[in-house]
Amino acid sequence: MIDLRSDTVTRPTAAMLDAMFRAPVGDDVYEEDPTVRGLEHEAARRFGLEAGLFCPSGTMTNQIAIKGHTEPLSEVVCEQTSHIYLWEVGGIAFHSGASVALLPGERGRLTAAQVAGAIRAENVHYPTTSLISLENTHNRGGGSCYEWSALTDIAELAKRQGIPLHLDGARIFNALVATGQQSQEYGRLFDTISVCLSKGLGTPVGSVLLGSAAFIRKCKRIRKVMGGGWRQAGYLAAAGLYALEHHVERLVDDHRRARQLAEALQAAPYVDFVLPAETNLVIFRLRDGLTEDAFLAHLAANGIKASAFGPQMVRFVTHLDVDDAAIGQVLAALQTVLQ
Amino acid sequence: MIDLRSDTVTRPTAAMLDAMFRAPVGDDVYEEDPTVRGLEHEAARRFGLEAGLFCPSGTMTNQIAIKGHTEPLSEVVCEQTSHIYLWEVGGIAFHSGASVALLPGERGRLTAAQVAGAIRAENVHYPTTSLISLENTHNRGGGSCYEWSALTDIAELAKRQGIPLHLDGARIFNALVATGQQSQEYGRLFDTISVCLSKGLGTPVGSVLLGSAAFIRKCKRIRKVMGGGWRQAGYLAAAGLYALEHHVERLVDDHRRARQLAEALQAAPYVDFVLPAETNLVIFRLRDGLTEDAFLAHLAANGIKASAFGPQMVRFVTHLDVDDAAIGQVLAALQTVLQ
Amino acid sequence: MIDLRSDTVTRPTAAMLDAMFRAPVGDDVYEEDPTVRGLEHEAARRFGLEAGLFCPSGTMTNQIAIKGHTEPLSEVVCEQTSHIYLWEVGGIAFHSGASVALLPGERGRLTAAQVAGAIRAENVHYPTTSLISLENTHNRGGGSCYEWSALTDIAELAKRQGIPLHLDGARIFNALVATGQQSQEYGRLFDTISVCLSKGLGTPVGSVLLGSAAFIRKCKRIRKVMGGGWRQAGYLAAAGLYALEHHVERLVDDHRRARQLAEALQAAPYVDFVLPAETNLVIFRLRDGLTEDAFLAHLAANGIKASAFGPQMVRFVTHLDVDDAAIGQVLAALQTVLQ
Amino acid sequence: MIDLRSDTVTRPTAAMLDAMFRAPVGDDVYEEDPTVRGLEHEAARRFGLEAGLFCPSGTMTNQIAIKGHTEPLSEVVCEQTSHIYLWEVGGIAFHSGASVALLPGERGRLTAAQVAGAIRAENVHYPTTSLISLENTHNRGGGSCYEWSALTDIAELAKRQGIPLHLDGARIFNALVATGQQSQEYGRLFDTISVCLSKGLGTPVGSVLLGSAAFIRKCKRIRKVMGGGWRQAGYLAAAGLYALEHHVERLVDDHRRARQLAEALQAAPYVDFVLPAETNLVIFRLRDGLTEDAFLAHLAANGIKASAFGPQMVRFVTHLDVDDAAIGQVLAALQTVLQ
Repeated sequence: MIDLRSDTVTRPTAAMLDAMFRAPVGDDVYEEDPTVRGLEHEAARRFGLEAGLFCPSGTMTNQIAIKGHTEPLSEVVCEQTSHIYLWEVGGIAFHSGASVALLPGERGRLTAAQVAGAIRAENVHYPTTSLISLENTHNRGGGSCYEWSALTDIAELAKRQGIPLHLDGARIFNALVATGQQSQEYGRLFDTISVCLSKGLGTPVGSVLLGSAAFIRKCKRIRKVMGGGWRQAGYLAAAGLYALEHHVERLVDDHRRARQLAEALQAAPYVDFVLPAETNLVIFRLRDGLTEDAFLAHLAANGIKASAFGPQMVRFVTHLDVDDAAIGQVLAALQTVLQ
Repeated sequence: MIDLRSDTVTRPTAAMLDAMFRAPVGDDVYEEDPTVRGLEHEAARRFGLEAGLFCPSGTMTNQIAIKGHTEPLSEVVCEQTSHIYLWEVGGIAFHSGASVALLPGERGRLTAAQVAGAIRAENVHYPTTSLISLENTHNRGGGSCYEWSALTDIAELAKRQGIPLHLDGARIFNALVATGQQSQEYGRLFDTISVCLSKGLGTPVGSVLLGSAAFIRKCKRIRKVMGGGWRQAGYLAAAGLYALEHHVERLVDDHRRARQLAEALQAAPYVDFVLPAETNLVIFRLRDGLTEDAFLAHLAANGIKASAFGPQMVRFVTHLDVDDAAIGQVLAALQTVLQ
Repeated sequence: MIDLRSDTVTRPTAAMLDAMFRAPVGDDVYEEDPTVRGLEHEAARRFGLEAGLFCPSGTMTNQIAIKGHTEPLSEVVCEQTSHIYLWEVGGIAFHSGASVALLPGERGRLTAAQVAGAIRAENVHYPTTSLISLENTHNRGGGSCYEWSALTDIAELAKRQGIPLHLDGARIFNALVATGQQSQEYGRLFDTISVCLSKGLGTPVGSVLLGSAAFIRKCKRIRKVMGGGWRQAGYLAAAGLYALEHHVERLVDDHRRARQLAEALQAAPYVDFVLPAETNLVIFRLRDGLTEDAFLAHLAANGIKASAFGPQMVRFVTHLDVDDAAIGQVLAALQTVLQ
Repeated sequence: MIDLRSDTVTRPTAAMLDAMFRAPVGDDVYEEDPTVRGLEHEAARRFGLEAGLFCPSGTMTNQIAIKGHTEPLSEVVCEQTSHIYLWEVGGIAFHSGASVALLPGERGRLTAAQVAGAIRAENVHYPTTSLISLENTHNRGGGSCYEWSALTDIAELAKRQGIPLHLDGARIFNALVATGQQSQEYGRLFDTISVCLSKGLGTPVGSVLLGSAAFIRKCKRIRKVMGGGWRQAGYLAAAGLYALEHHVERLVDDHRRARQLAEALQAAPYVDFVLPAETNLVIFRLRDGLTEDAFLAHLAANGIKASAFGPQMVRFVTHLDVDDAAIGQVLAALQTVLQ
């Protein structure tokens, strides 16, 4: 099967697996796993922040950050289709008791002016605005990337208002590779960054939350209560260290392949529109008359899996386990949809 | 001063005060205040529901209902400017740990199609949709009223989906008087209704939550934890009983006066637009060049108070303590704004 | 009926009722009710604190204070039968997401040593200790009063540790009258005090939360989300002002009557033990063979109500509506229990 | 170093590591990891329950179970030193908004009579009792084991009252091995069981929550919001499958070694008392004059780590990485404490 559902489905390469099982480990609750500490340190260094916290999922790193920044009776400003709001089971309300101010982004991207308009005035009827959260690349926006100037504008607003700024960097490496932005610069803009290792980077499990040393110390307690206090996690952290070294630059291949798919879809008579394929996600709408279920059934019959993404909407994701041959098979299957 | 800021500012009439003063009372935590029980019973009867719960505010009745209907990891569907979301301090997240699905209404009014689109599919990433909440009249929509067919469409959808339907009836009597809809019919559509007594009805304090006997029993515990277990509240309940008897029909006067203000504003050269004045709220936008602060300062200099309602936006509210003479004074002051 | 169930059941005297209905009022959400502001100011002044917040119940003032002092992942130290833990519907967990460290007091009274032992060390597995809460008089302890030295010891510990100290003063006036302690001194020990007006003081509704001006400002938002933002509450506040003036000293009568009841019970052959009656509460245990239900039924047959307080346990409460004649009737009924 | 701090510090054996390395994996959020599913199935089968959920920690499995069984305004009955209350960061309040009824056990063990006394009566002032939770072996009780009759008594009470019963089985295999009880029988008593794989069983990471298929389905959403939705977790699950096969019976060695340590301590002149060493935990109190810090420093100087466990209290834990030679070294070091 060719699996285009998500970049989370990858399996480690032999070299990554080898790195995993050679890793020295220890009890991470006692802060004694050398590989976990190495990964946390390396990820923080790359993004120009002080400290890191290795966790089982990006939902956990995001939700820990939100809990760490906010308190009940406050509000988080984010995009209305952002992952933290839409796909994390209402965790902002559940864990943090915080409200949300939901803004409509341009393919998921907010402007400083929009964010400024969503900051609540002081009023006994209102929660206080306690966090601004961005997502780069933006999943629902089709893997769209923020321009650097848009990020700096929002970061300046946040600093001026004294409101922390979080980045959901589930696919931040895709953004870096696509735009040529420097990861070290991100630490100057964002108070915290959630970096996922098990999407484009291809590790089995894990995300790292990055921030100041003091903030990460506070987050360890939150990770503990959420059940993220794991023990000899170094086997998984080793995969992260390996991926940081070997799986970042290769994302250009995923992006090239996504563009190939997007071009074919754009030309297909049964496709209404395709969001610009800036990175490794291809989101498109089928014309009326072809349901997403029928389309996915056709793909499945050709050994291809993809995700329904709303009525008439479908998402393709390219990743480490989808090579050029696989893309060729997909392109062939796209030719025969209407037959 | 003429106070157009809100219909909450009214003081009891002499007759209402007399009714309060004579009320028999008891300890309502022991369910022994006869006047409270009388009010709860009468309000429920009027709206075709089984039972009522008298509380210190409409925020409490709304938030109790939301808590009673939902649980953490679920989601409330409501309009994006609804009172329960915008002006209740993020209480949905705070009390209920529930997420919100925010829909853009037409002057605050939702359609069944919109609501249907916001109900979450079964998916481990999503909260479950546990409540649909409407507001009638809709404050931010300028006191707009739902048509009966729109309400029944949404109620049918809710029943079909097995999702409870709540009404924030902070100004439900204004809607009833304006549309000629029958209060008894409401109980067939809504699982719970929050009815406010201290807005158009002119009592000092209190709202009543209405619902089934079983649901209201459950809500007593929620009221208790929120601190709404008051003792000899019958003095306040008596005002509510008086108002149900004497202050409903007179709302037509408030509506007539609101229309007078709206017409004058519509004709004023400094007004950009006025939302249709269907009931007792008049929301309007000033043209660029006249700030809401300058406008309110002019009114204040003429002995009139009103509320800023966003950039360039102002709200007037007519009520029991604003008579025709007061309206005359306001109309005069509106003439001299640009002088 | 003679109602010994609680001091919450009192009805206002004619003079109090007169004071209530002459009160000037305004919209308290706009902070414009002069009588509410007067009560808040006077109560704060009496206890040597800066500001007050008038609320519908003691549960609300307690829970607002707890929410204001704590945050999730912290812990409240209190006595294991304290009202805030036992009788407020688990509100500490519900509103504040805070854990509890429950200490066994001597008739509800804690020592500084006990409190010191309950303060959590810094450890990622533990919540942080964020609040110490005392109750004086202590309800479940039989209306027991803290000695001044015990209070100052705990207050010094709290200050040394930087942990706020709250007082549930539901019956603080009983403690003041019984011990001769000065209310103004309390403000030097406690960060916040919840003072109830509808128990021994005999008003229909209300408690006042006292604290610093900054803390009370923060609490207004919490009161709002809990639904305690009421409007023309001055009618109720007036009763509080009246009671502060006229109903404090008279508590000595309630205490004398409680002692009379306690002495009679102590001598009764069917009573196992009576907690020392320091104030207006008399808690006692019936000997095996006489159930609390049978005992209460005998009283009811003699026109007397009282409260079951656990297996074989009963509570009597003296108050404004129980005069010497009523005590005589109760004493007579106690004579005939075994007949 | 000989590490007696906890049985969580073990590193996998070569054979376990080999099993991990060969495991087939998939994306567990899509429920497609065959090794995870195999582990969940095998663990459930062993304990006579329908389904399992593999999670990163025992805190997560416990807290998910508590959240799944309770709702806000309810209360959990547990022992006052139980792990779920004492060492999970106040998670019961944090995640579930639930109150706790804390009972003093005999070395952590509760009786049905105690539990019955803690179940709250129906009363608007009380939360409802929604869960009873036991811990077997009991950590703070020194690894004490419940007798079967005590468990069945509590289970019968729970069923009679309609209250779910949860088992924190962090060290359930130690209890099974020590008592000869059958794991399959546990499923008839408990609604849910949290089974830890990274303590006595010696795997790097993970616990499994067991329960009915419907309950586990509900728990998947809770795991997701807590951030426990991991991807190719099969590498860790494989260690669990290996340990179930190979590391259960060998716990008798850990128990024998713990008894050796306990006997030596009992005979030591500087030890006040030792809790009976029923399994692999040895908790003891030092006599006044020897602080836990001085004692641990002496051990450290001899290459041995152990845990302070309160004032004058120390805990030793035997496990897979502590063999007879290591025990010999510890015994030697215990001889020289007072020198």
